[in-house]
Amino acid sequence: MKQISGGVCAPVGFKAGGIHCGIRRNHSKKDLALIVSQTKAAAACVYTQNLVKGAPIYVTKENVSDGCAQAIIVNSGNANTCNANGIEIAKGMCRLVEEYTGISQNDVIVASTGVIGQPLSLEPISNGMKELTEGLGDNSDDAANAIMTTDTKKKEIAFSFNAGGKECHIGGIAKGSGMIHPNMATMLVFITTDCTITSEMLQKALSEDVKTSFNMISVDGDTSTNDMVSVMANGMAGNKIINAPGDDFESFCAAMSAVTKYLCRAIAADGEGATKLLTCLVTGAKNDDTAKIAAKSVICSSLVKAAMFGADANWGRVLCAIGYCGADIDVNAVDVSFASEKGEIQVCCGGAGVDFSEEQAKEILSENEIIIKVTMHEGSGLAEAWGCDLTYGYVKINGDYRT
Amino acid sequence: MKQISGGVCAPVGFKAGGIHCGIRRNHSKKDLALIVSQTKAAAACVYTQNLVKGAPIYVTKENVSDGCAQAIIVNSGNANTCNANGIEIAKGMCRLVEEYTGISQNDVIVASTGVIGQPLSLEPISNGMKELTEGLGDNSDDAANAIMTTDTKKKEIAFSFNAGGKECHIGGIAKGSGMIHPNMATMLVFITTDCTITSEMLQKALSEDVKTSFNMISVDGDTSTNDMVSVMANGMAGNKIINAPGDDFESFCAAMSAVTKYLCRAIAADGEGATKLLTCLVTGAKNDDTAKIAAKSVICSSLVKAAMFGADANWGRVLCAIGYCGADIDVNAVDVSFASEKGEIQVCCGGAGVDFSEEQAKEILSENEIIIKVTMHEGSGLAEAWGCDLTYGYVKINGDYRT
Repeated sequence: MKQISGGVCAPVGFKAGGIHCGIRRNHSKKDLALIVSQTKAAAACVYTQNLVKGAPIYVTKENVSDGCAQAIIVNSGNANTCNANGIEIAKGMCRLVEEYTGISQNDVIVASTGVIGQPLSLEPISNGMKELTEGLGDNSDDAANAIMTTDTKKKEIAFSFNAGGKECHIGGIAKGSGMIHPNMATMLVFITTDCTITSEMLQKALSEDVKTSFNMISVDGDTSTNDMVSVMANGMAGNKIINAPGDDFESFCAAMSAVTKYLCRAIAADGEGATKLLTCLVTGAKNDDTAKIAAKSVICSSLVKAAMFGADANWGRVLCAIGYCGADIDVNAVDVSFASEKGEIQVCCGGAGVDFSEEQAKEILSENEIIIKVTMHEGSGLAEAWGCDLTYGYVKINGDYRT
Repeated sequence: MKQISGGVCAPVGFKAGGIHCGIRRNHSKKDLALIVSQTKAAAACVYTQNLVKGAPIYVTKENVSDGCAQAIIVNSGNANTCNANGIEIAKGMCRLVEEYTGISQNDVIVASTGVIGQPLSLEPISNGMKELTEGLGDNSDDAANAIMTTDTKKKEIAFSFNAGGKECHIGGIAKGSGMIHPNMATMLVFITTDCTITSEMLQKALSEDVKTSFNMISVDGDTSTNDMVSVMANGMAGNKIINAPGDDFESFCAAMSAVTKYLCRAIAADGEGATKLLTCLVTGAKNDDTAKIAAKSVICSSLVKAAMFGADANWGRVLCAIGYCGADIDVNAVDVSFASEKGEIQVCCGGAGVDFSEEQAKEILSENEIIIKVTMHEGSGLAEAWGCDLTYGYVKINGDYRT
């Protein structure tokens, strides 16, 4: 497996583009993205678990229910959620894709991100479609920019890998920022690949993958109404079709995991107001589920997050978050260390504090990538979760977002 | 029922005091409190659900296992948690109470709040006991001050009420601030009453009460290792003993509820960095449990909290928090309004936005007590939860607390 350039256009047969069509007032910010495959592709999606769902989620679910898709249209600036005519507008976006590309409106994945509860007009989208489709090309970059909201950095990655002796490619773009706002920073992830794989195996790969990737990130504990991760596989790499578990499927899953883990870290590191990427690595747990619950609890604790912002080796907060996580854990067996590029320092052993150099801890925690290592000495379960620090910036962004 | 002065000393037969003994370096901040009853009292407690528990929790549990107590000793500045010798120190505190007051060490409720994982020395406590016990009197105020940590306001209240034709009194003090820090702002609540009631009925009253009082507050979603609510009833009001449900028990529960609701609101309003008290009132839910889950989810949402700080009528975040709360709710039937002393404004009807005056909403949300009203139109379940806004101050306090 090798990292390559090109994002969602790295796989053979995919084109992308992104423009400013006028949903946003700011002309310098793109707000509409399109990704198309040359041929109909196997498709798989996972969606938000929030009971309040954006209209595009319903339309996408219906469109990919046959396991196929050929295009993705996404706007930023408006979530098209909690509007009376949301479904109609989301279907209208799909229809516009058909009108301008010839791809059936039933093969379109549609997504929106932005403010909730404000009607989304089709007009700017309709006006922009000509420019958008004419500009389709090797422009993953433009699509990645167009889906950004309060993201400060574009999130894009691609890898090449081998399946059945053929070189395949997989690429992805994402937006995150809050994890994940109800009305602004929905997490959206779009993955493309030229690998040949059935939609069943594609869905299996994706559903498994998100358990240890996107479901293990938290910026603020809020689950958006519009979260979506989608993958299209158009088979243009020409490998023997992957229709069952085996070596080729493993290769595909590993490549997908490389894409999703990269995007997870990028989303967490670019959490609203974040200055640090936090990773909580739990090992030695009774089982993986226990490790997951504990890792996520640590990453979600406002107190841990604020301490990390202040480079404060406040391990009691880590232990406390493990204590209330809900899993059955022997807290008297827990060790805690903090690590970064500057080294590693143990701060808690067997559930109690150990003497450590506050100075060295401060140096380690002043880096912008921190690993909180938790060892449980109860088994071989492990998990990793990603998050970010809680900062003045988060409060500022979310205290006056709409105004 | 009538509000009266005197706090935990309002009930007949209770004395209190608070001093600076030297656990904290700051000489102007009291750090040790004592509350004693003239006679042995029925006692009931509820404790943190965190698996990591402070040593004082274990010792208190043992001491009140017979349903009796006569004194409460509390220090701030050190949580006596995750220390090798924590139990020994907590028992030492009880022994000091026996030594200076003659009350059996087995009848002492002991609590600590402050930094986790740093050994607590008995020495300053021992040195302070003479001053503390000599100063015992009508000093609920001093005790309330001594248990404060990052609290900015003392929390104290008392009521008189009638049980079986006798005038009874009930009073309480609390500390909160973070809800509830692992290493600083543990929630501690101490209630006294001169009502005559069995320890069984006292425990029943308290356990019922916390479900709709202290379990419905959140400042930051973190559950402390040291949380404790205790009540002592010394029977000196001379009412006929309450040993079964009935009118007298109802009167007692109502009076206790007045104390706990007042302290809940005071704790939430004084959450770390808070500028506003938020109340989420859910009505029309399928049942009370559904209402509770939804109300708490709204109050816990970082996005809702930050929006309230910014006086931003961002109702999509309220709906979103209801959508991910985990209860089975018809989100398309939900109405949302914001209210304060400046009036009330509906912002969402049947799960969708309604036109409203942003100006009026801003005016309403600029007050320091905000009610978020959620109506579900599915039944008659209701619940109230209390919290506070998320501010720069919270980040500041928790980003560099220990340093």
